[in-house]
Amino acid sequence: MTARKVILDCDPGHDDAISIIIAASKRSSLEILGITTVAGNVEVEKNTVNALKVKDLLGLDVPVVQGASRPLVKDSEIATEIHGESGMDGPVLPEPVSRKTDGHAVDFIIDQVKQSEEKVTLVPTGPLTNIAMALVKAPEIKRNIEEIVLMGGGTFGNWTPAAEFNIYVDAEAAKVVYESGVPIVMFGLDATHEVIATEDVQKRIAKIDNNVADFVSELLVFFGDMYQEHFGMAGGPIHDACTTMYLLKPELFGFKHVHVAIETKGEFTYGATAVDLLGVTGRIPNTRFAHEVDQEAFWNLFEEILESYGGVESHENT
Amino acid sequence: MTARKVILDCDPGHDDAISIIIAASKRSSLEILGITTVAGNVEVEKNTVNALKVKDLLGLDVPVVQGASRPLVKDSEIATEIHGESGMDGPVLPEPVSRKTDGHAVDFIIDQVKQSEEKVTLVPTGPLTNIAMALVKAPEIKRNIEEIVLMGGGTFGNWTPAAEFNIYVDAEAAKVVYESGVPIVMFGLDATHEVIATEDVQKRIAKIDNNVADFVSELLVFFGDMYQEHFGMAGGPIHDACTTMYLLKPELFGFKHVHVAIETKGEFTYGATAVDLLGVTGRIPNTRFAHEVDQEAFWNLFEEILESYGGVESHENT
Amino acid sequence: MTARKVILDCDPGHDDAISIIIAASKRSSLEILGITTVAGNVEVEKNTVNALKVKDLLGLDVPVVQGASRPLVKDSEIATEIHGESGMDGPVLPEPVSRKTDGHAVDFIIDQVKQSEEKVTLVPTGPLTNIAMALVKAPEIKRNIEEIVLMGGGTFGNWTPAAEFNIYVDAEAAKVVYESGVPIVMFGLDATHEVIATEDVQKRIAKIDNNVADFVSELLVFFGDMYQEHFGMAGGPIHDACTTMYLLKPELFGFKHVHVAIETKGEFTYGATAVDLLGVTGRIPNTRFAHEVDQEAFWNLFEEILESYGGVESHENT
Amino acid sequence: MTARKVILDCDPGHDDAISIIIAASKRSSLEILGITTVAGNVEVEKNTVNALKVKDLLGLDVPVVQGASRPLVKDSEIATEIHGESGMDGPVLPEPVSRKTDGHAVDFIIDQVKQSEEKVTLVPTGPLTNIAMALVKAPEIKRNIEEIVLMGGGTFGNWTPAAEFNIYVDAEAAKVVYESGVPIVMFGLDATHEVIATEDVQKRIAKIDNNVADFVSELLVFFGDMYQEHFGMAGGPIHDACTTMYLLKPELFGFKHVHVAIETKGEFTYGATAVDLLGVTGRIPNTRFAHEVDQEAFWNLFEEILESYGGVESHENT
Repeated sequence: MTARKVILDCDPGHDDAISIIIAASKRSSLEILGITTVAGNVEVEKNTVNALKVKDLLGLDVPVVQGASRPLVKDSEIATEIHGESGMDGPVLPEPVSRKTDGHAVDFIIDQVKQSEEKVTLVPTGPLTNIAMALVKAPEIKRNIEEIVLMGGGTFGNWTPAAEFNIYVDAEAAKVVYESGVPIVMFGLDATHEVIATEDVQKRIAKIDNNVADFVSELLVFFGDMYQEHFGMAGGPIHDACTTMYLLKPELFGFKHVHVAIETKGEFTYGATAVDLLGVTGRIPNTRFAHEVDQEAFWNLFEEILESYGGVESHENT
Repeated sequence: MTARKVILDCDPGHDDAISIIIAASKRSSLEILGITTVAGNVEVEKNTVNALKVKDLLGLDVPVVQGASRPLVKDSEIATEIHGESGMDGPVLPEPVSRKTDGHAVDFIIDQVKQSEEKVTLVPTGPLTNIAMALVKAPEIKRNIEEIVLMGGGTFGNWTPAAEFNIYVDAEAAKVVYESGVPIVMFGLDATHEVIATEDVQKRIAKIDNNVADFVSELLVFFGDMYQEHFGMAGGPIHDACTTMYLLKPELFGFKHVHVAIETKGEFTYGATAVDLLGVTGRIPNTRFAHEVDQEAFWNLFEEILESYGGVESHENT
Repeated sequence: MTARKVILDCDPGHDDAISIIIAASKRSSLEILGITTVAGNVEVEKNTVNALKVKDLLGLDVPVVQGASRPLVKDSEIATEIHGESGMDGPVLPEPVSRKTDGHAVDFIIDQVKQSEEKVTLVPTGPLTNIAMALVKAPEIKRNIEEIVLMGGGTFGNWTPAAEFNIYVDAEAAKVVYESGVPIVMFGLDATHEVIATEDVQKRIAKIDNNVADFVSELLVFFGDMYQEHFGMAGGPIHDACTTMYLLKPELFGFKHVHVAIETKGEFTYGATAVDLLGVTGRIPNTRFAHEVDQEAFWNLFEEILESYGGVESHENT
Repeated sequence: MTARKVILDCDPGHDDAISIIIAASKRSSLEILGITTVAGNVEVEKNTVNALKVKDLLGLDVPVVQGASRPLVKDSEIATEIHGESGMDGPVLPEPVSRKTDGHAVDFIIDQVKQSEEKVTLVPTGPLTNIAMALVKAPEIKRNIEEIVLMGGGTFGNWTPAAEFNIYVDAEAAKVVYESGVPIVMFGLDATHEVIATEDVQKRIAKIDNNVADFVSELLVFFGDMYQEHFGMAGGPIHDACTTMYLLKPELFGFKHVHVAIETKGEFTYGATAVDLLGVTGRIPNTRFAHEVDQEAFWNLFEEILESYGGVESHENT
């Protein structure tokens, strides 16, 4: 089997960073064509720096290309209260040595998808601005996109009562993506709130002795504190990591094939994802919606992934 | 303690009928000032006939007053696929002997609230058209309303992916009610889907030997079949009954005090109730939102209520 | 020919007052069944007092019934910057001797329409709250309403760039009215801005020597100053008067039969009346939209009407 | 004085073609950096072919770059009923000899604006998709844009009762442009309906003896027939031409400096431009709104422009 080609489109971001770490690990057979950044958790420039820091930490040899600094239509929104000023507060990584690649993420995505002989999977874990712009600028790339495996939305919200942050930041972009006809695999809050890095999880990871696991540990401590403070949760849900965990092992999740519509007009529901779980709309499903997680298997694999970065023996039993 | 005065505003409706039965039982200390009807599950005229039938069955001596035949602003919507053509299909009750009281429900509500020495509790289990019209026509009644204890909404929908039927039918009316400043106790789908009349429940009720329990049994069989067919659920949730069960025994439910906003503008989310469970909006709570049910205690009390209608010994142990 | 029966539903208001004066004059053959008031230019209580003052001034023997104190769904809005604190600033009339009739305008409208052997014409010159509530509470009255002759809307706005005041205050009510199927005759800003009481007009009226004309003169001076100050116009358009002028002499106006839709969802256009002058929507016309005025004939008739109140010879030549 | 640098972003389109002809004439001192095309009147590929045809006719040596084939967020909409199947029906021009330049209009606009030493003026006469995408992709270009001189919107509509075609096709793009902070000069229907190519105008142009004037004549005949048929107008308004006529001679038009907001949420008003002519919103003006035209001067100059293409003596008297 050839490696599955992916572009990680992100706004790191604690959980975005973890998502990259998963994709880049020895346990992964993904071929990362590049990392593209987007305004989201914090400003795009900061997200790019964070992506470069993670790249350097992992010794990863892939282009990092900066993308949209603002949403498609509405004003910007950032989430420093969750991710800190830097967008990845907590661990202190050295300033990046590697440099971003010239050009705009939108064009990088278009070019990579066009050039690739096999279909490419897009993995957005931030607002969907880059993906939407690519689809609007070059609709012909649709036929060479395998799937869009994304973190966003859910049947409930975290940024407003009805909307999750990634979709809320750019609901118009989300609308473009969900209406594009490209198959979507959606990890919304229903799934991601099942993978909370509790103290118990944090302890398991703390035992792993390598610099990547150390970094993840520090991320989870900071992120967990923020979630406890703001949402009263027992730890931080590593939302974005669901996307790459799925790409490594799809059977971790249960899915429903449903129609999802994006609300862009509502007064109190802007950015809501209307997930038709009961099939009441009669609309044709456009999304595989993750609604359950095998938590034990999830954390076991997660542990193995971090162990695969060295320092302790990694067991291969998948 | 004096009896709590209530007006049951409803569109019976299987679960509305059960709600009336609870309120009128020997186990209840509620004083029912009247039953008002509204267009909802089916046309208002049918809902009125159904209310009269239930009244006759119970030998209940309260006025039944017909109300709004259409929503406040939008077009009508009915739910015969759930409740059948009559709005209360399944059991066959004789045509009502008693007659509806002249006048309009809106005026009945206004007059009763104004005349009452103690505050009155409104218990709407259908669309909120009558309640909203009363509040718009006579805003001064607000100060003499104890609470509005309603069935409607939730963090998810059943009529659309985002909206529950009662709120969807007349979201503008819901907006008026939720913004009125009157304390609201809300039984949305989050609570009502916890009280499903499964086969097990149906068996328990079938053992009770009186004509009211027989009627309820037949309601539950029909209603359960409809829910199985349309929603793949293991029985019918007796949504509306939560309101009067709460009035009999509030400790059956767990509540969060939150702000709830009603979506009237959305493209895919009209009628959604944006329940601010995480407190992210900063808006002042206007609603006690039922989010959990003590199911065992609930069904035990429900059994006792039906037994209180005679035929078997009713045990009094609350 | 029998007299045409009308109910004047208003929020006097300078131009509402003038509208009443026209309807009650000797030149009019209208039978005024009553005057109903609604929250609009100012609070409904003040509008009622103003209606009673005008009634007393004219020695008019009709019931004045107070109606809605707030819009159907949205929050209240008033326009003291145009009409002053009293809602009819400028002239000083004595406190009213006559009293309002008990009951609510909504019920008065319903009862009058139901009781009348001939069809009744409703003449709303304020927000459409009372009319909408009557249509929702008693939809059966539609068949006995001749026309709804209203002042509101237009292809441009005065309260926002897109919306005229009366419609903006209660766009949901307007939606109910325009979608009711009852024939509508609409005097929007396109027509009413053609009947500005310029200095020239004011001079003609000042010459008429009776107390009603004096009152109108004072109204026009105050109203004109407000319009000059706020909108830079050469005088006050006597908007509401178009409705009763039309009822006295329809041929003063040119009409187009068009579909009008009411915007209730827009971000910048709430309360806009989408007037399909070009027929591009394909929707069936629901409105006779006044788009032109024979100004000379209008002011001539207006002068005659004021003269008919005495003091100078009134010529009868219509 | 150095030549003013412009990019003509268009969807030719009869009036777009005329706009190009004006800009490229000997009477013009504009430096055309390029012509970019966008989906609008018809599909973008057809609009590009039409642009190339006009380029060849004029012997114009500028790049033609194709742009967006769909709107930013919503579905496509075309207007073949006005412009015919080709988008420029009527005259028959030979297939283009010149070819479009590689790349995407969005990047062409970004690059040209960035590279230019003087500020560049953008002249969109179709939907604003390309302009909006350029502003989102490279917000830093704002500081080097002199003005956006556009045809679109108005206080009334032609595609819906509330919206003009260009804005309706992509209201989200229009929102981005109007909220960008770049100075906007707006030729909406209020201005463009003042420049109708009536039979009288057509006769004047028919007398001019050169191939460009012949082409314009044929355009106007077809376009006028369409407007007569669809809108009952006495000829076709050469909407888009206002933009370049303004650039040649600004004093042809009267302007008001106002705030314009773009409606993207409305049910009946999507794409409306809320033009705050009365200053009631208190928002800071973002637009110079053309509200009047010196028609005589306009057609005189237009005649001179067409004459400047040769065949008859062109008089130079501006």
